[in-house]
Amino acid sequence: MPTAQDPLAQRLLAGDKRALARAISLVENDDPAGWELVREVFPHTGKASIVGLTGAPGSGKSTLISALTKLRRQADRQVAVLSIDPSSPFTHGALLGDRIRLTEHFLDQGVFIRSMANRGALGGLSEAALQAALLMDASGKDDVLLETVGVGQAEIDVIDHADTVVLVLMPGSGDSIQALKAGVMEIPDIIVVNKADHPLTDTMVREIRGVLSLAPAVKGAWRVPILKTEASRGEGVEVLVEKLDEHRAFIEEEGTLSERRQRNLRNEVLSICTFRMRRDLAARMEGDDEFARLLAEVVERRLDPASAATQILEHFEA
Amino acid sequence: MPTAQDPLAQRLLAGDKRALARAISLVENDDPAGWELVREVFPHTGKASIVGLTGAPGSGKSTLISALTKLRRQADRQVAVLSIDPSSPFTHGALLGDRIRLTEHFLDQGVFIRSMANRGALGGLSEAALQAALLMDASGKDDVLLETVGVGQAEIDVIDHADTVVLVLMPGSGDSIQALKAGVMEIPDIIVVNKADHPLTDTMVREIRGVLSLAPAVKGAWRVPILKTEASRGEGVEVLVEKLDEHRAFIEEEGTLSERRQRNLRNEVLSICTFRMRRDLAARMEGDDEFARLLAEVVERRLDPASAATQILEHFEA
Repeated sequence: MPTAQDPLAQRLLAGDKRALARAISLVENDDPAGWELVREVFPHTGKASIVGLTGAPGSGKSTLISALTKLRRQADRQVAVLSIDPSSPFTHGALLGDRIRLTEHFLDQGVFIRSMANRGALGGLSEAALQAALLMDASGKDDVLLETVGVGQAEIDVIDHADTVVLVLMPGSGDSIQALKAGVMEIPDIIVVNKADHPLTDTMVREIRGVLSLAPAVKGAWRVPILKTEASRGEGVEVLVEKLDEHRAFIEEEGTLSERRQRNLRNEVLSICTFRMRRDLAARMEGDDEFARLLAEVVERRLDPASAATQILEHFEA
Repeated sequence: MPTAQDPLAQRLLAGDKRALARAISLVENDDPAGWELVREVFPHTGKASIVGLTGAPGSGKSTLISALTKLRRQADRQVAVLSIDPSSPFTHGALLGDRIRLTEHFLDQGVFIRSMANRGALGGLSEAALQAALLMDASGKDDVLLETVGVGQAEIDVIDHADTVVLVLMPGSGDSIQALKAGVMEIPDIIVVNKADHPLTDTMVREIRGVLSLAPAVKGAWRVPILKTEASRGEGVEVLVEKLDEHRAFIEEEGTLSERRQRNLRNEVLSICTFRMRRDLAARMEGDDEFARLLAEVVERRLDPASAATQILEHFEA
């Protein structure tokens, strides 16, 4: 199967873990060789099941992912985990504690674990994350698990690359359910209430049912299951595996999988274009006299931002 | 002072509440008349103190804003509140409950309250919110309070328009402090722990101190105060007013205010440009044969998204 020219691409397609790690670093550093590599291995992608897991810090996503990885490995599937870690420079690595829960898999050749940090580039993280997921897919992983923290736009963009989206909630933590209720995040495909030992678990399940009941009922649509897990003891994780497989089968049968992927790829192309246009515009604005003049007028309140934007677009498109 | 030509602009500059409401609707609906109005009144902006208040749903932001508004009114200042309400279509208005806490001010002519919902347009909400804030400023409000929910990118963009950023936390709710710790959000200017009756308040204050201590100490820099409030009884809100005024005086003296505003206006111009470039590109992609051909190649995994983006940018720039 490895038909690639580049030795790194060949090793990656053959499932070499170190080649995969190296390839992701290239992409993360925005090295042209990374984009080139993705281009070369892209025809070998599309086989993995891409699952996005999201939820607030502390909801136990990493423990759940660890338990899920264990079951997938028992079924002899290759697993890759990509944790999107939106850290600011000065607290860099603050979320690393979560990663520690995955250590039991570090020595397993069938498991690849990587975290990727937000480097502040607008839209850049989401793009780099997709490229990394494609590399994982190309390297022969059966399951690619994308872990994101929070419900911000960058995380939603990452999750948009997934075939199946799992929202992990924890009883008593109101923020996430409020975000769901408020529509800050879209309704996921599967909802997991983790740490289900908590006395407020059933209250939370009821609240979630209430939120889901607000959605218009569509005949033949996927019914979002609400699962209870206690990931630290592995409880309820088999049911999650079943539901993941059911959802995957459902979207394959319905044709929704190819629809989703088509929509995601379309948005991905548009996002990469937007990111590059913004980057190029910002670069051209640096040191441009006309821009400096317009900005000074805005700062002096003689020209409003929208009119300045119009003039800048005209200036640079001319 | 009202020198505008447009009667709506004249009424707005004279402080007419209904004119302000109408103007914001124009901006929210992306009506060209709205942008025209902002253009006309922009020279009269820059006087209001723009305060951004952010925090998870349930942290009591609205109650705090109501208490803050009360004190500002007692000092005979005009207040405008803009609540950014990121609702999805099907749960639209789910956060309306929060607004109810502001009802005591509805009949006060010196208070203007408005919420603005995310209409899904990428970057659109943030741009519309800034335009609305400018209109509020132009209409003679002394304090413009921007309330946002969550810590997503759209909210951060809105908050970026503020002179002073207040993060409202609630004891026991770990999500927000984790977001702060993780650097998902920048360090604010003032941190309020609301619902300070809670037994976990002091634990939370210590946790916040711990997070803040990670930041490099800069001589002469603003020291972020951590305040405890019980907004529902108005407790601690005078101290918040003092700190807001202190921060404002600090950034004025340091010259940081004009620096911040210059940076914000620069980013604003860039964001409006980006938004328009993306919108125009998406419109040109619709029904374009070359784009359809490229997308089909991506979906069939013959062409990777980044290479497709390169070809599309070349195609449309040609």
